[in-house]
Amino acid sequence: MTTGVRRRMGVEERRQQLIGVALELFSRRSPDEVSIDEIASKAGISRPLVYHYFPGKLSLYEAALRRASDDLASRFVEPHEGPLGARLLRVMGRYFDFVDEHGPGFSALMRGGPAVGSSTTNALVDSVRQRAYEQILSHMGAVDPPARLELVVRSWISLAESTALIWLDGRRIPRAELEVQLVHDFAALAAVAAAHDEELGTLLRGLLKDEPGDGPFTDLVTRLIALASSP
Amino acid sequence: MTTGVRRRMGVEERRQQLIGVALELFSRRSPDEVSIDEIASKAGISRPLVYHYFPGKLSLYEAALRRASDDLASRFVEPHEGPLGARLLRVMGRYFDFVDEHGPGFSALMRGGPAVGSSTTNALVDSVRQRAYEQILSHMGAVDPPARLELVVRSWISLAESTALIWLDGRRIPRAELEVQLVHDFAALAAVAAAHDEELGTLLRGLLKDEPGDGPFTDLVTRLIALASSP
Repeated sequence: MTTGVRRRMGVEERRQQLIGVALELFSRRSPDEVSIDEIASKAGISRPLVYHYFPGKLSLYEAALRRASDDLASRFVEPHEGPLGARLLRVMGRYFDFVDEHGPGFSALMRGGPAVGSSTTNALVDSVRQRAYEQILSHMGAVDPPARLELVVRSWISLAESTALIWLDGRRIPRAELEVQLVHDFAALAAVAAAHDEELGTLLRGLLKDEPGDGPFTDLVTRLIALASSP
Repeated sequence: MTTGVRRRMGVEERRQQLIGVALELFSRRSPDEVSIDEIASKAGISRPLVYHYFPGKLSLYEAALRRASDDLASRFVEPHEGPLGARLLRVMGRYFDFVDEHGPGFSALMRGGPAVGSSTTNALVDSVRQRAYEQILSHMGAVDPPARLELVVRSWISLAESTALIWLDGRRIPRAELEVQLVHDFAALAAVAAAHDEELGTLLRGLLKDEPGDGPFTDLVTRLIALASSP
């Protein structure tokens, strides 16, 4: 940076560099507070040159969001081995890593707003949700999920999002506790739905059979029963 | 309408009429499919006259959304009498009435999109969430809620929203079952959080003491225990 020697970059290389710079800035502050001037300055190029690669701030924002979306979705991938609760807990750890790294940008995007809402950004957010949904179903071995399982998984994903947003707003509960709590929430919501749906109940009992006695799912059931039987 | 006699309306009366017409149209279809021409025609006035009262479609949309928000928030109000589970179940019934009445408009708004996202519409949606939050806390008698209770209530509100959106998308599960399930979800999420938080556990046990044996909360705990002890 300070050697005074500026290597010429190819078009795609320059685009990728700009996306990286933009993503870092859009992650740390609300996107409407980030200017093209600032991105240009951080990238060490002129403002007009930024416009040569991206027609405007929105297109650069969308490119940065696309990279962040791929990054997040890749963190959902988990080997199909070992207890389900432990797998979900590891994914929750990586999810909160991502949320932590992109805090202000994540909040601005998920809370919506004029600088971040477009049909492209909405489609990107939905595609990440869809990939989370597909990963969870594949781990549950549910090829043709009953309607109530789809509801549980999709609504739990929105619960995880709102939990992360509330965590970012003040960080009053340690994230490690929230990661465990979200795994418990999943089990609890699935248990409630299974109580209303025989097919889902059978599926869930089959899955719980393979859970170890010291895993988070078993832990939850134990805790729920203890709570229910307390005086 | 067909008598040929058109009574002159005052300014405020005309504004309220236009808001009513707009709300009906914006409820039944996605807002980007509703034109000022159609609103003018339904209201029986000319297109330029609509612009006399509202500078554009967005301002009319925001006025309609404001009326819908007040309507929805008023449905959260429930007497502080009788079992908590039954109170929440009645509110869920009125919530799904609202969602049913405004289906396509509700979906378009909550899923976001270029025609509906503005800082004003976001603020209105947030204000309704806030009123739901305050109602629930007041029924739980929680004046100074611990962080985990705030998390449970706010994240459950987002769960109720996503459940309603998933219901609208195909209506594959009867709404009456989802209303009960959401009450159960609330109890389950509160139970999970209470298992992680002594203060919340004490609060919850105090509330459950007053629940009747045949109410939805007791029903849930019974179902959860039955599920956990099935072979």
